[in-house]
Amino acid sequence: MSLLPPQILNVIEEFQKLPGIGPKSAERLTFYLLRSQKASPESLGDALQNLRNELKYCNACQMVTLTETCQICADPARDHATILVVEDPLEVVAFEKTSYRGVYHVLHGVLSPIDGMGPEQLKLRELIARMDAGGIKEVIIATNPDVEGDATASYIRSQIGEKARVTRLAHGLPMGADIEFADQVTLREALEGRRNL
Amino acid sequence: MSLLPPQILNVIEEFQKLPGIGPKSAERLTFYLLRSQKASPESLGDALQNLRNELKYCNACQMVTLTETCQICADPARDHATILVVEDPLEVVAFEKTSYRGVYHVLHGVLSPIDGMGPEQLKLRELIARMDAGGIKEVIIATNPDVEGDATASYIRSQIGEKARVTRLAHGLPMGADIEFADQVTLREALEGRRNL
Repeated sequence: MSLLPPQILNVIEEFQKLPGIGPKSAERLTFYLLRSQKASPESLGDALQNLRNELKYCNACQMVTLTETCQICADPARDHATILVVEDPLEVVAFEKTSYRGVYHVLHGVLSPIDGMGPEQLKLRELIARMDAGGIKEVIIATNPDVEGDATASYIRSQIGEKARVTRLAHGLPMGADIEFADQVTLREALEGRRNL
Repeated sequence: MSLLPPQILNVIEEFQKLPGIGPKSAERLTFYLLRSQKASPESLGDALQNLRNELKYCNACQMVTLTETCQICADPARDHATILVVEDPLEVVAFEKTSYRGVYHVLHGVLSPIDGMGPEQLKLRELIARMDAGGIKEVIIATNPDVEGDATASYIRSQIGEKARVTRLAHGLPMGADIEFADQVTLREALEGRRNL
């Protein structure tokens, strides 16, 4: 029998389901919420209860939105013939800080059999439907450069076939990187992708 | 204007109030909850909403409990003349795994002027009341060995005066430690507290 009341154990258990939060961190967060002046379990609880309220996914790109069509897809000034495919909404936020002016498609995950993520769990059918509707010239795949991201990119490549040009983000050295500490895969990609100066 | 709907920003903001969770982790946790099969914002939200429901603090030791008096204070087989003073309930759980058979007093914090924690914010009045009720032979102070813990220990020492013997947990090398890597304060305490073999 535990010394701690069940409602405390329950919060500890729920926190432990989150990535990067182990038993000790979960306990620490729970007791912090119980005695903090800044945070409260009720306001975090409220925010979480409301998270999916009224939340919609854009009927074109699947970005989180409050309207049927997100503000990017609804913007006639954007290049609707170019689709940048990303894993999740935060990556749209990141690319919006660049000069990219095309539109997006949010997969909401990557292929990962261990986590039960197959093609049906991703917003892939919606991407193919957009391709079939026509007018798409290029699909830029921007999944993360890791095993799942690479597998997802290959899968999308095979699904799109000849319907559009399919490209992938360049791999290479990130700005500010130290070549000495770069891993060999990155160095090989940087060499293979070298460009004229 | 943000690309993300307000209810998402709200959860990100609430997560950021927790210790050790910065803007990037807060975003990652929020989007994990939106798409995870294991965790859900509703079940974590529910658990948090219920956290303080029916939660009581033991009328003697201030431990979190569901009853007026916690199971330790209600146990006549324990040594009620010895009180171990700790910062928070998790430390009671830790000491219960040892052979300690006295009772506890949970301060729910330590003196920390920067965080707005003065003597009134701690359960100190309740400790003094227990002393005044009589029958206490020893108070073992088990605040953490850091600046705030030491200051809190000194303050409690001064408040108890001659009402009971006041002791503090031994400082020294933890089991399994490597003397080579021990800091000098720990080594000095270990030398000063040396015992006959």
